[in-house]
Amino acid sequence: MPEIRKDPVFGRWVIIASERSLRPNQFREVAGKNAYHCPFCPGNEAETPPSIYTLSAENGEGAKAQRNKGTKARKGKNANWRLRVVRNKYPALQPEGDTINRVEGIYDRMDGMGFHEVVIETPVHSRQMEDMEVSGIADILKTYILRVNEIKKDHRIKYVMVFKNHGASAGASISHSHSQIIAMPMTPIRVVQEITGSENYRRDRGSCVFCDIVREEAGSKKRVLEENENFLALTPYASRFSFELWILPKKHLSHFENADAALMPDLAGIIKGVLGKLKRSLAGPSYNLIVHTMPVQDPEVGHYHWHIEIMPKMSMVAGFEWGTGFYINTVSPEDAAKILNTGKKYKF
Amino acid sequence: MPEIRKDPVFGRWVIIASERSLRPNQFREVAGKNAYHCPFCPGNEAETPPSIYTLSAENGEGAKAQRNKGTKARKGKNANWRLRVVRNKYPALQPEGDTINRVEGIYDRMDGMGFHEVVIETPVHSRQMEDMEVSGIADILKTYILRVNEIKKDHRIKYVMVFKNHGASAGASISHSHSQIIAMPMTPIRVVQEITGSENYRRDRGSCVFCDIVREEAGSKKRVLEENENFLALTPYASRFSFELWILPKKHLSHFENADAALMPDLAGIIKGVLGKLKRSLAGPSYNLIVHTMPVQDPEVGHYHWHIEIMPKMSMVAGFEWGTGFYINTVSPEDAAKILNTGKKYKF
Repeated sequence: MPEIRKDPVFGRWVIIASERSLRPNQFREVAGKNAYHCPFCPGNEAETPPSIYTLSAENGEGAKAQRNKGTKARKGKNANWRLRVVRNKYPALQPEGDTINRVEGIYDRMDGMGFHEVVIETPVHSRQMEDMEVSGIADILKTYILRVNEIKKDHRIKYVMVFKNHGASAGASISHSHSQIIAMPMTPIRVVQEITGSENYRRDRGSCVFCDIVREEAGSKKRVLEENENFLALTPYASRFSFELWILPKKHLSHFENADAALMPDLAGIIKGVLGKLKRSLAGPSYNLIVHTMPVQDPEVGHYHWHIEIMPKMSMVAGFEWGTGFYINTVSPEDAAKILNTGKKYKF
Repeated sequence: MPEIRKDPVFGRWVIIASERSLRPNQFREVAGKNAYHCPFCPGNEAETPPSIYTLSAENGEGAKAQRNKGTKARKGKNANWRLRVVRNKYPALQPEGDTINRVEGIYDRMDGMGFHEVVIETPVHSRQMEDMEVSGIADILKTYILRVNEIKKDHRIKYVMVFKNHGASAGASISHSHSQIIAMPMTPIRVVQEITGSENYRRDRGSCVFCDIVREEAGSKKRVLEENENFLALTPYASRFSFELWILPKKHLSHFENADAALMPDLAGIIKGVLGKLKRSLAGPSYNLIVHTMPVQDPEVGHYHWHIEIMPKMSMVAGFEWGTGFYINTVSPEDAAKILNTGKKYKF
């Protein structure tokens, strides 16, 4: 059973999950026997925990991907899907256990209770998000919304983090395109700080800081990457990391899971656009994509506004910033936007 | 001139320093012509800005290192040193400029005013900190104390960050052993949060959280790595990263620069001990070493206690944690202490 421990200085919660160190890492096994085997490919459904949610292949895509895999894969009975959600085989948190605070000397901890799901985004092993159809990316986003709404029915769950690690230096251990949903019994301190910060802004200035950012950026255009009727993608004014990106819905809404599923094709278009730009200018970097949203049991509020943050990981750069909270960024967000928008290649 | 920008949500300050992208990176030039040239080696003093502070070679060490470098190096006139402090040639902050807040739309920024110094820790190119004599490490620590006390005389400076990046994945661009001192006109938000956290702890429980940690850990011994009369090294209870280490002075003191220089050999012994353990068990990882201390213009307080944090960087692990504030650690601090103390080799 994983454990959730509280740092006595910061009040920061940390998950200690020793079992996760057992999970295989395809990126480290490039030369090993497991490098060419993928548990997320069609035909290998039995290697993951059972599906929690499935979208069937519409146009024979699943079956096609399966055929390409040859004899063994063709035997799979459940392989006719275009998206699957399964429980993580090496979960950071587990449904068993309770949320009682336990005292250990001067420290606090609780059972690592929660849910950890994996969204297998496509049956095609080598198709990354930026190469998918807009409708395929929209399917993924709609699945996130569905799953969060399902998970929040369990009232022990306070926060649901939806994220995607792409590439080894972003922490991914499997290259087949997937994202993760971690549902936890507490709100991570960074989320608390973000909400507190936006609450303070609203108290001082009377408006939602994210709505103000949308207005300011859509006006100045200096840091805009993509824009459509409902969403705006930009490099934030105080970017911590080179080529950091945010995607903001234009209409105020606190909770991602309350977003209208009908808007997801619009959001998918923006995501496809920015990932394509990252790929072109930065030679396909590893990145983390994180949905920032309110704690699921809280009501809609005027000061907080859900959004997506994407952080490309430039290897050998910015190691220091990791965990210090002190950031030195050598590419201004204005330059980053210019480079990405013109498709110039950037060399670190 | 670098710029300091404030994130409107968090109130987090970020340094945007485009000039720093020009600095050479030895680690990336392994095959290039600059890979074998080192501006920090004796004989190459003219390639760095002039020395701010120098410790002369006591026992001919500087001269010896110089002789080993051959004809060209022997010409250096100023090469008889065992430690040098110079201004960073590619500074994140610069002494020119002022600390006036400038408004830009809804955003705040100020000039990137401050100091950025480099401590060249040894004349010997390939000698890393864990291989130095305890007295050599103590010299480095005493130099930190001296420099911080000198820098804080400039009252525009609010915080002085002393840190060491070792290895490419920790953000180092030069392999010759060195550390850095960045003095800035504001206090980084993570420092503010750490101080606020310890203030809350003191309000709740009446004691200093770090003093309590020292007492708890020295008692339980479960997470202790090294201990002597004045210092304790441990893996913290809520470690964010695998093999994260803290070194705490046993006696309460808020400000690192107020520490008694006579205790530095003791601290040096502990640092040498833990770095040796990291090297043995983790095959010489990259790491960041950071001195955590109070803002320099603030008085000594009862709730905050200076200390050192060391974060080994395991490549391809924990990319996700970078910048999310959400941590999953797959090696419990108790296991980490056991592995390091027994000298067992750990494989990720």
